[in-house]
Amino acid sequence: MSESRKGVARLVVKCQDKPGIVAAVSGFLHSRGANIIHSDQHSSDAEGGMFFMRNEFYLPGMDMDGLEAFKQEFSREVAERFGMRCWSMNPAWVRKKMAILVSRYDHALMELLWRWARDEIYADITMVVSNHPDLREPVETFVPFHHVPVGRSPEEKAEAEARILDMLEGQADVVVLARYMQILSPKFVQRYPMKVINIHHSFLPAFVGADPYRRAAERGVKLIGATAHYVTEELDQGPIIEQDVIRVKHSHSIDDLKSSGADVERHVLARAVRWHVEDRVIVDGNKTVVFQR
Amino acid sequence: MSESRKGVARLVVKCQDKPGIVAAVSGFLHSRGANIIHSDQHSSDAEGGMFFMRNEFYLPGMDMDGLEAFKQEFSREVAERFGMRCWSMNPAWVRKKMAILVSRYDHALMELLWRWARDEIYADITMVVSNHPDLREPVETFVPFHHVPVGRSPEEKAEAEARILDMLEGQADVVVLARYMQILSPKFVQRYPMKVINIHHSFLPAFVGADPYRRAAERGVKLIGATAHYVTEELDQGPIIEQDVIRVKHSHSIDDLKSSGADVERHVLARAVRWHVEDRVIVDGNKTVVFQR
Amino acid sequence: MSESRKGVARLVVKCQDKPGIVAAVSGFLHSRGANIIHSDQHSSDAEGGMFFMRNEFYLPGMDMDGLEAFKQEFSREVAERFGMRCWSMNPAWVRKKMAILVSRYDHALMELLWRWARDEIYADITMVVSNHPDLREPVETFVPFHHVPVGRSPEEKAEAEARILDMLEGQADVVVLARYMQILSPKFVQRYPMKVINIHHSFLPAFVGADPYRRAAERGVKLIGATAHYVTEELDQGPIIEQDVIRVKHSHSIDDLKSSGADVERHVLARAVRWHVEDRVIVDGNKTVVFQR
Amino acid sequence: MSESRKGVARLVVKCQDKPGIVAAVSGFLHSRGANIIHSDQHSSDAEGGMFFMRNEFYLPGMDMDGLEAFKQEFSREVAERFGMRCWSMNPAWVRKKMAILVSRYDHALMELLWRWARDEIYADITMVVSNHPDLREPVETFVPFHHVPVGRSPEEKAEAEARILDMLEGQADVVVLARYMQILSPKFVQRYPMKVINIHHSFLPAFVGADPYRRAAERGVKLIGATAHYVTEELDQGPIIEQDVIRVKHSHSIDDLKSSGADVERHVLARAVRWHVEDRVIVDGNKTVVFQR
Repeated sequence: MSESRKGVARLVVKCQDKPGIVAAVSGFLHSRGANIIHSDQHSSDAEGGMFFMRNEFYLPGMDMDGLEAFKQEFSREVAERFGMRCWSMNPAWVRKKMAILVSRYDHALMELLWRWARDEIYADITMVVSNHPDLREPVETFVPFHHVPVGRSPEEKAEAEARILDMLEGQADVVVLARYMQILSPKFVQRYPMKVINIHHSFLPAFVGADPYRRAAERGVKLIGATAHYVTEELDQGPIIEQDVIRVKHSHSIDDLKSSGADVERHVLARAVRWHVEDRVIVDGNKTVVFQR
Repeated sequence: MSESRKGVARLVVKCQDKPGIVAAVSGFLHSRGANIIHSDQHSSDAEGGMFFMRNEFYLPGMDMDGLEAFKQEFSREVAERFGMRCWSMNPAWVRKKMAILVSRYDHALMELLWRWARDEIYADITMVVSNHPDLREPVETFVPFHHVPVGRSPEEKAEAEARILDMLEGQADVVVLARYMQILSPKFVQRYPMKVINIHHSFLPAFVGADPYRRAAERGVKLIGATAHYVTEELDQGPIIEQDVIRVKHSHSIDDLKSSGADVERHVLARAVRWHVEDRVIVDGNKTVVFQR
Repeated sequence: MSESRKGVARLVVKCQDKPGIVAAVSGFLHSRGANIIHSDQHSSDAEGGMFFMRNEFYLPGMDMDGLEAFKQEFSREVAERFGMRCWSMNPAWVRKKMAILVSRYDHALMELLWRWARDEIYADITMVVSNHPDLREPVETFVPFHHVPVGRSPEEKAEAEARILDMLEGQADVVVLARYMQILSPKFVQRYPMKVINIHHSFLPAFVGADPYRRAAERGVKLIGATAHYVTEELDQGPIIEQDVIRVKHSHSIDDLKSSGADVERHVLARAVRWHVEDRVIVDGNKTVVFQR
Repeated sequence: MSESRKGVARLVVKCQDKPGIVAAVSGFLHSRGANIIHSDQHSSDAEGGMFFMRNEFYLPGMDMDGLEAFKQEFSREVAERFGMRCWSMNPAWVRKKMAILVSRYDHALMELLWRWARDEIYADITMVVSNHPDLREPVETFVPFHHVPVGRSPEEKAEAEARILDMLEGQADVVVLARYMQILSPKFVQRYPMKVINIHHSFLPAFVGADPYRRAAERGVKLIGATAHYVTEELDQGPIIEQDVIRVKHSHSIDDLKSSGADVERHVLARAVRWHVEDRVIVDGNKTVVFQR
């Protein structure tokens, strides 16, 4: 698979909507001999709206140096002209580094590892970090596992987080919380802005916070859900990447809800992570634009 | 259809779970020559749990008098023995009287009328009441329409509600709020306990209250939902009967959300109403047991 | 709604994939002062693949004459250069003329009329034609109804079809078969190539032909479906536009299957018709490219 | 989990429908001090219909000897009286022995192993047999793996099958084909009647036989499906246990279809296997009655 990604890059643009952007971008790519494989666009329809674009293009023979030069040309000839401040051009053949944080539940983690092993998630999983030692064995057949216990006092929590931040340094373009039962500090979140993906086990904004399945059972809902979102400083309030639900009924116990919910969680998280590493998610305020396959 | 309902009744039981209930109920029915067509049971698994049962049975030749006698026998021989305080035995061949309250949106209303005209909702729709005159014409091709304007002051609101309560008297075994944009008073709710069904245009408990689609758009959710629930004195907090969702995406405007949402609303409400009139919904605290077909 | 469509047109292109098409099309539109509202593209990835594009653009002040002139410019400056033989530029403010053929079932028909009345299907429904008189009354509250009886002999069938073709002449840009229980002749199909949309009450290619619900029940399937497709000369073999399914179970009778199926049918057909009139469906051999909202 | 299953058994009945069966069965259970935990019933509504019932009951202190005695009592006092020829009473605390046959694809297999490891599939997986050696390593971390190569000639195929039948002897109450790319002989099928579960990678009866994804792509379907069914002597014609679908679109390649399809396959098979080992599936001619949780 990495072979066919050689020479392929993804140009992702977010900027003020102006006439002529598509013509300028596609004209630039064509003039340089780049072939557009996929192209997606979206204009938010509000007044003074935003424009979002993702182009997957192929430039024969392009390597990292070539990409760097291409970026500079694009910057000069297109980005500056349209005042684009928020754009990226990423090589499709380079795997993003991914670290996974987890506690004791293994379902979301194993789904990620399983899809990664099948090359459905194109990334380098550099490590799995857990505050519990339980999952060492199944994880280590795939990737390195680190146990970082987290104490109960604020000092101990801060210390553990600092250890984790050290471990992640240079090893994580994206951090995935695959049911990590600790709240990250603002410091951590600021270090990885829109790069920490969490799976919340409810259909947000319903059941923000702890113990959503118990609360869902108490409220008597007929569907339970899961939400993958970027982590921001406000708990469970970050931009939503993906959500899904599953039907439940009166005969289901809380354990049944957890079991059904686990299936939704793992799929929702896997889709969100896949889309993130393929540069398909653009944050728009507290929302996301997702250019699905 | 009403022909084949002759002699059919539905015995619905909710009581403390005790050994031998099923044997007693089915033994009673068999001993009287009644044939069980459908039977559903549920035990809530908590300590000192509740037992729920719905039996659809056929007793050849049973008419209203026969049913009345049968109820008294059941009461003496089974219900009293097991201390059942909450049970009913309804004739399947008698249509429940249904009143529909609506404002200006017609989608949920028309779905109900359409399914009712196809005999999928087995009820007598005695009237449609609206605080706006707009829907008179399409409604009157089906059933009587009453326009009851609702003023803005508390006094005017109370007066309008009193008029509606008068109209409903003796004409409503169930009241359906098919997007009625007025909040009912505790007095109204107490008059029709667990007999008022509302459709809320969100996946409750997300977006309780007003304007859920705008808030859903602002929160950037990836699914929007609808919830049919019994109305209690606390706004949007009553027992949920049915819920469903539909997928939305970044390219959808608030109008698109409303349009997609309208489709979910009308189906969720139609299912809830159908289940209610077929005695398939049993309220259990703030939850429901729904014995679907 | 028609107001905001003024000046908006849809450019739909299907051609051999070549480098530079996107740049040429978007460059042309931009150079003429047209603003792209939505743009979708697809390249079939086979060797010598095809390219598909739909642009919804706004050109201030454009009327029918302006559009005609714009088409000629596009033809000269872009279409000829890229050898495009299959493209169209349709005014968004002009409603397509739609005729609906139906037999006795009303569910798919009423769904279309209902959505049309809400302006969700932007078309002129010029007539409903049926081989039975039953639906005259509900239809005539919306649009003209014609009863064209169809005899059993080949001659009578041909005669009835000829009558219908006469009626449709000049009155139908698209013909929708909303459960029309007659097989159209090749002559009819050739007169409206890729302009006749049928709803088949199964998940094609399962249960091609007659009586799919009975056969689905006999096979014991756990889902039943519906398929909207363009009609070609081969029965139930034309390009599929949309499909969906609904879950059924052992307790459902054939009548339950028909009732559940009716819900799937009406939604699948409504989506297909809506996409067709919005120029969102491009036929690609025996498949379709559908650019959904 | 096995602890809470002690003393629990499942009485499954299929017989001619007659008045009084429910009363007799529930009366018998109650008279012996058994407590009904779950009860499901179904009557096929045809004339001279069949009756299906599943009771999960708890008899304090019941062990294998007690269950055996209980079965004999039930046989004498109920089954004979109603002429039941097809009934079973299985201990919930005993795991069924399960063998899995697989070729090279691992997705359906790994899903089963993963759910089994979480105790969601309550069985003893005694072995995985494959005609390829590829999956030895991941499988052996869970259960024994046997490589049984299958030649191309009829003799070699028969020989391989004979080897597998030998291995399975006494080790398999159920055989799961988790994408096993060999057709089993009538001899094999007769040895395990309604005990071999296959996952077919299409929505049967669409695309019976080989290479369904390619054929689905060629037909341009908008949904692809998977079907779990019991294996009978006729290829892909056995009773369907479970089906599901996933939406696909024009931009998906055959590889995308396979990848999406793999997700449907693994879930459909896992549900079917789980229901089978929990005695929730009753075969009714070429259909199934499934009493879901």
